[in-house]
Amino acid sequence: MFEPRRIRHCRVCGHPARYAVPPEDTRERAICTACGEIQYENPINVVGTVPAWGDQVLLCRRAIEPRHGLWTLPAGFLELGESTAEGAMRETDEEAGARIELGALFTVLNVVSAGQVHFFYLAQLQDTVLAPGPETLEARLFREHEVPWDELAFRTVRETLRLYFADRERGRFEVHAGDIR
Amino acid sequence: MFEPRRIRHCRVCGHPARYAVPPEDTRERAICTACGEIQYENPINVVGTVPAWGDQVLLCRRAIEPRHGLWTLPAGFLELGESTAEGAMRETDEEAGARIELGALFTVLNVVSAGQVHFFYLAQLQDTVLAPGPETLEARLFREHEVPWDELAFRTVRETLRLYFADRERGRFEVHAGDIR
Repeated sequence: MFEPRRIRHCRVCGHPARYAVPPEDTRERAICTACGEIQYENPINVVGTVPAWGDQVLLCRRAIEPRHGLWTLPAGFLELGESTAEGAMRETDEEAGARIELGALFTVLNVVSAGQVHFFYLAQLQDTVLAPGPETLEARLFREHEVPWDELAFRTVRETLRLYFADRERGRFEVHAGDIR
Repeated sequence: MFEPRRIRHCRVCGHPARYAVPPEDTRERAICTACGEIQYENPINVVGTVPAWGDQVLLCRRAIEPRHGLWTLPAGFLELGESTAEGAMRETDEEAGARIELGALFTVLNVVSAGQVHFFYLAQLQDTVLAPGPETLEARLFREHEVPWDELAFRTVRETLRLYFADRERGRFEVHAGDIR
């Protein structure tokens, strides 16, 4: 999450940090008052999938905050040591216990206010056996007219589903890049 | 940069942190031994452009480490408060002083070993007036056969240029997503 001015101490030596613009920089950074270490804060990535089974898509009802009880595509934070595709597959397994064949990158959506970039990949479910993990209350398949549009957890999920059904309707999927403001 | 186990102290209270797997997690995180704060480390994003002028593309020779003296497309770390497109435009201005019209997202390349995801956008130069910033030794235009392939700074730059000339040859640009291993 985007938490500006969250760094109060140096991660190297533990002494207090203060925010100032370093030499040859243009932005305020957390700088250690003792050792001079500069700590940068950057947007982080969220990765997920649009798992399809025939004319249905898989959604998960969140068992955790934020947005407890609302519906989402399986997605979560990209970890060090994995690619965006690998992270999207891992999250689909963790949140829904779903076996998928990963498809192409589908949406790349900036959520500047949250300091996040969200990636969703197309995916084909290999069967309908689902085994939701502890972060999911339930996982189930929805036809387009069944999607709980008013109970979706995130705007990037809404936008990705909207683009998915539009592209499916015209018979051609392409990559969509944009911003959620 | 990907610097695992770099966190030695809590950013909230400054007390020592140690790496352990938190409850209900699967990965080791830096956890404060005093206040319990968990500090996550995630991949960061690099954003840039492929600025074109007729049959030429703009490259910058780096005045900074890493890869001092080698050639790169204008690119740098995505900052909080900006979208990937905005960051790509900012970096093009900072590194080359180039006026561009930003085009479509072109490459999304994971560099897992570096803990990075690189984004390059197509761009049209508006004129050939360049004003390289302090991070750039020189900026100039190259035709395809002039590109210094053996003196490129980063593999994502090489791959993006390769894809750019291939797509230009066939007369159609599309988004390319993949990994640099």
